[in-house]
Amino acid sequence: MKALCFAQENGAMSPAFLKALRDIPGLEVETIDDWASLDRTALVRLMQGSDILVASRSPAVPDELSEDPGNLKYICYLHGTMRRIIGLPIIRSAIKVTNWGDHPGPGLAQASLTLLLALFKDLPKRILAVRNGDGKGIRSVGERISDMNIGVYGFGFGGREFVRLLRPFEATVTIYDPYVDDVPDDCIRVDALNDLFSVCHAIVIHAGLTEETRNSVTRELLAMLPDQGIVINTARGAIIDQAALFDELRSGRLRAGLDVLWPDDLPEDHEARQWENLIWTCHQFRGEPWPDERAGKPGQRGNVHLDNIRAFVEGRPLQFEIDEVRYSRMT
Amino acid sequence: MKALCFAQENGAMSPAFLKALRDIPGLEVETIDDWASLDRTALVRLMQGSDILVASRSPAVPDELSEDPGNLKYICYLHGTMRRIIGLPIIRSAIKVTNWGDHPGPGLAQASLTLLLALFKDLPKRILAVRNGDGKGIRSVGERISDMNIGVYGFGFGGREFVRLLRPFEATVTIYDPYVDDVPDDCIRVDALNDLFSVCHAIVIHAGLTEETRNSVTRELLAMLPDQGIVINTARGAIIDQAALFDELRSGRLRAGLDVLWPDDLPEDHEARQWENLIWTCHQFRGEPWPDERAGKPGQRGNVHLDNIRAFVEGRPLQFEIDEVRYSRMT
Repeated sequence: MKALCFAQENGAMSPAFLKALRDIPGLEVETIDDWASLDRTALVRLMQGSDILVASRSPAVPDELSEDPGNLKYICYLHGTMRRIIGLPIIRSAIKVTNWGDHPGPGLAQASLTLLLALFKDLPKRILAVRNGDGKGIRSVGERISDMNIGVYGFGFGGREFVRLLRPFEATVTIYDPYVDDVPDDCIRVDALNDLFSVCHAIVIHAGLTEETRNSVTRELLAMLPDQGIVINTARGAIIDQAALFDELRSGRLRAGLDVLWPDDLPEDHEARQWENLIWTCHQFRGEPWPDERAGKPGQRGNVHLDNIRAFVEGRPLQFEIDEVRYSRMT
Repeated sequence: MKALCFAQENGAMSPAFLKALRDIPGLEVETIDDWASLDRTALVRLMQGSDILVASRSPAVPDELSEDPGNLKYICYLHGTMRRIIGLPIIRSAIKVTNWGDHPGPGLAQASLTLLLALFKDLPKRILAVRNGDGKGIRSVGERISDMNIGVYGFGFGGREFVRLLRPFEATVTIYDPYVDDVPDDCIRVDALNDLFSVCHAIVIHAGLTEETRNSVTRELLAMLPDQGIVINTARGAIIDQAALFDELRSGRLRAGLDVLWPDDLPEDHEARQWENLIWTCHQFRGEPWPDERAGKPGQRGNVHLDNIRAFVEGRPLQFEIDEVRYSRMT
């Protein structure tokens, strides 16, 4: 069986990953370094000649493979959202497609809890005061996390993992997600965002971006949060009415920890960069392995894909297979 | 039965606390506002005239009450460490003494986890880079807490609570505390600090300050931590050889989150205030209640004491009673 890779230096296809890929019994691995010079026809022919395509953020997979796949039976896509790389015709065809599945969940949940705890204790304000020769006398609003009602907006991979990490703090947890029906017994479920924002001290967003969630965190909802309430967003920037949130941050009424914005950057001289009630982590919360573990492990993320490729080679079922419904929910 | 309070505006004896105290059936509460003008004899006489003394950070309790207590049978001390307020003769006498017991544990543990997560993701570096118009491209060392071996030095109230909060992260947890024999099954126990520092990525200190622990985190131990290793201390500053730790921070090799220092302050122009691999929270991690809960709750801390005073009035056993052994371990 043959696997085709377009070599990239982006972490998703590290030397350790490629080595582990080459070690899969019964798999011949071809890596293409100079694909940028290939025309579309040559690209299609290359892909038709392989059983497995290990695809990353480029090149895009031509739609015509859906009608004439040649040998191609499985595309292992190394990231999450894939619209720009893999079109709907491919998803509808017999070619199997997988992505990284629930891999980002734990990382996003950990990012959310880190930002929540950091804002709860006003770390930016403390760090800046210490640098300015002061730092005594800062009293944060909120004594213990256990006193808080924490609202989780979106109970998918990330939201579930966040609630699991938060559990020992014994906060009240309120969940809004109209698409799930298995909210844990120790959480409160509400059926409208109104009911979430009107009772919670903090809102933690783990929803996907859809037409329904876009701009769904409105000015009116933000106004329902108490003074010094906290908004955490490690999901998608466009879920929040950002102008409204920025008004609340500029006035100092709310606190926010945002890994994502919309658009997902700020000009160098944007006033928000100076706000002491905002932590913005530039959509780059991911870390690198510890140096003492760098020697050749493909990591949890690489293992998701390696497990799937091994399963495909051995004729076992795949994890995180993308069908039209899951594809339509991607952003 | 009569209780004597020396009124103070320090949070320990808030209006909500005093109101709850006055509501205890069978208890008459006397508050003294102008005790600073009383001489020692008058102070002793006042205390002899009450069954219960609700004591805060001043005035000190005269030792002669141990020999001639009058009516005084119970001192409810509203804080933790008490050497400057209550002397050993009182502890050795028939007068019962309690303190806030395990009250600070959850707050310290929460502080430790907040600092650990914040350093793990280099929040100071990120916050400062964003302010300077940048912030992209920061990659922290360490992908997931689950990859880490986290060393807990001291497994008392704070250490236990920290391990409880950390459990869902599924890190490897290694514990050093020669005075306990009930380490959880999912943790590793070591019998020397050497064995802690040589295997862990991060050290979280929850030990008390004794002659044994003073300066016990030596230069040699710190050198055993890996590059970008993390030291968290919310216990006592003097446990660490601070000059050695500062050398490791100045060089950028380690990261640290410190609520306490020794001495417990830094000059306005101290270089450590500018280090991006250090968060120092000035021994002031405690927060204030949310505004919407301010209306009249004595809080978890107040309840510890109110429960004890109610128990004493009703002749039930007290919690967190101080004997000579516990007293000798105080700092």
